Amino acid sequence: MRTLNLDLGARAYPIHIGSGLLRRPDLLDPALGKGPVAIVTNTTVGPLYLPVLRETLASLSREAVVIELPDGEVYKTLEMVDRIVGELLAHNCDRSTTLIALGGGVIGDITGFAAASYQRGVPFIQAPTTLLAQVDSSVGGKTGVNHPRGKNMIGAFYQPQMVLIDTDTLKTLPKREFRSGIAEIIKYGAIVDLGFLNYLDENMEALLALDPTTLMHVIEQSCADKAWVVAKDEREGGLRAILNFGHTFGHAIEAAAGYGTFLHGEAVAIGMVMAADLSRRLDYLRESELNLLYGVIQRAGLPTSAPRLPVENYLEYMRVDKKVQGGRMRFVLLSALGEAVITSDVPEAAVVEAIQSHMETA
Amino acid sequence: MRTLNLDLGARAYPIHIGSGLLRRPDLLDPALGKGPVAIVTNTTVGPLYLPVLRETLASLSREAVVIELPDGEVYKTLEMVDRIVGELLAHNCDRSTTLIALGGGVIGDITGFAAASYQRGVPFIQAPTTLLAQVDSSVGGKTGVNHPRGKNMIGAFYQPQMVLIDTDTLKTLPKREFRSGIAEIIKYGAIVDLGFLNYLDENMEALLALDPTTLMHVIEQSCADKAWVVAKDEREGGLRAILNFGHTFGHAIEAAAGYGTFLHGEAVAIGMVMAADLSRRLDYLRESELNLLYGVIQRAGLPTSAPRLPVENYLEYMRVDKKVQGGRMRFVLLSALGEAVITSDVPEAAVVEAIQSHMETA
Repeated sequence: MRTLNLDLGARAYPIHIGSGLLRRPDLLDPALGKGPVAIVTNTTVGPLYLPVLRETLASLSREAVVIELPDGEVYKTLEMVDRIVGELLAHNCDRSTTLIALGGGVIGDITGFAAASYQRGVPFIQAPTTLLAQVDSSVGGKTGVNHPRGKNMIGAFYQPQMVLIDTDTLKTLPKREFRSGIAEIIKYGAIVDLGFLNYLDENMEALLALDPTTLMHVIEQSCADKAWVVAKDEREGGLRAILNFGHTFGHAIEAAAGYGTFLHGEAVAIGMVMAADLSRRLDYLRESELNLLYGVIQRAGLPTSAPRLPVENYLEYMRVDKKVQGGRMRFVLLSALGEAVITSDVPEAAVVEAIQSHMETA
Repeated sequence: MRTLNLDLGARAYPIHIGSGLLRRPDLLDPALGKGPVAIVTNTTVGPLYLPVLRETLASLSREAVVIELPDGEVYKTLEMVDRIVGELLAHNCDRSTTLIALGGGVIGDITGFAAASYQRGVPFIQAPTTLLAQVDSSVGGKTGVNHPRGKNMIGAFYQPQMVLIDTDTLKTLPKREFRSGIAEIIKYGAIVDLGFLNYLDENMEALLALDPTTLMHVIEQSCADKAWVVAKDEREGGLRAILNFGHTFGHAIEAAAGYGTFLHGEAVAIGMVMAADLSRRLDYLRESELNLLYGVIQRAGLPTSAPRLPVENYLEYMRVDKKVQGGRMRFVLLSALGEAVITSDVPEAAVVEAIQSHMETA
């Protein structure tokens, strides 16, 4: 097991990474308060890992209220937050309740926002079970739900007490979802960690084969890279926005293609290709750098082109993205591999070309 | 005009109190960011004060998106938050948007929570138009909405940029609502300010007649008392809970009687009578003190007894109140007039008696 510490000045919390961590009462105990415990999970993950987690709780003489939501991004809604609150109230869960998010990014985001909002805030624990959630959404305190008009439009910055990453859960994760998680891993390399990007370039096969040493290193390095960025800028005043590399395009692709068509990481992968292409067009990035990144994404088995739709469909969604400020679209671009810049000085024509160059051929 | 400063350490914000403040661009300007402005109001308050506020904005060459919600506590729901978010997105309101809450406590609470949650937080301004909102809900950063199973169960601690209290708005406020606001004013006297309680005892008629000097003093002193408590304990770790004096009973009364039967302040008035009665039963308070408080509440024209229902109806709601911790009900009691204590060492029999002694006679 490895433990990272995410130090936010006012508060720090541990990120534990390792095999079999859901079975470790010694890790769970210090992160639980004295009040009730409620586990939020979904109908896919629940049957797989609820028994283990409940056993661990039982060994601490603790019981938990279980709230099982339907599985899928389409359920990342205010309605589910309302449902969690209703269940908590029905079970007399007071302000001292600790919520445990057992599942992927959707469960983590909904549960985090429910924790932030329930009685104006109760503690919670992230127990991510997908690669994407383990290396990205469970770390850093972004929580929230979607609105029909845009992703993650309702939410809070709210930090967990602990992130408990049990790498064993990846064994049951569908391959497509595993690859989706790799997109965010590649992103860390692209924006802040050239050494890591080269490591991924060389070890992609081992990673896809779930080689334990590779997996452990990759998750740890991703969490460390993310924690470094978040610790510098918790509330996205500046630097943190680089974590959105590929996401302005990616969110537009998810929305324009219809939520559910692409997994989040798949859309981000295409978005990174477009953002890197845009960086190249603006002479930020060299052709060889673009190709290295492109190659890593391809070898992860991730898609690199978006559905052929009118460009305006994508632009429309990009304009309502949270990265827009004062009416100007802002972009996270690469000034080199391992180095990101944020700029709103981007001609729309170049954006259009970057999108059009990475659409599926008819 | 008087200006108080609510200093929370990390951030301070002004509370302006005076006549005609909605017409003051000099006050509005520094509290507005550079981004879009959206006013959230309701169908009752909007027609009265939107034209004034829009004129003030126009003199600053600013326009505002207007979001008009239906009027009433029954609309203090997640659904309305969803509606606000939808309108903001439809009008391309980005993360630099400032929301202005123009209305009573319900509008302030919903708008504050929408501001806390929209794109994980945008700035907002409180422009309270009811006495209750001016002396209580607009100050201190508690925001939120109700759940069918309990009041204010979903929310956030989220501070505004400014509170703009235009006392002229009280001229159009229905008398019953004005009296409801007085309940919270009396509360400040009861829990932290004996001098103020005596002042209210002596000046209730002038207050009810909207005498400008009395009104100004009463609002200022209430905001000052509340700001003092909130500055000491923003997130209700301890002291702040004394602001809930009368509220555990009050919330139960509102819920048991059916939301809408009592105005919030009316329920709090009855709740204060019960809590003071309970304080007397436990020998915290003397009979003469109880009578003084009782007299002030009566002279404000506020109710002092709850509907005759089985006591269990009330107790049930009290048990799910946010003041419950670790399964024990906690009470804010008076150890003297102007002095509150928080205790969970209260025999249920005494609680039952306090409720039963203040029910309407058949």
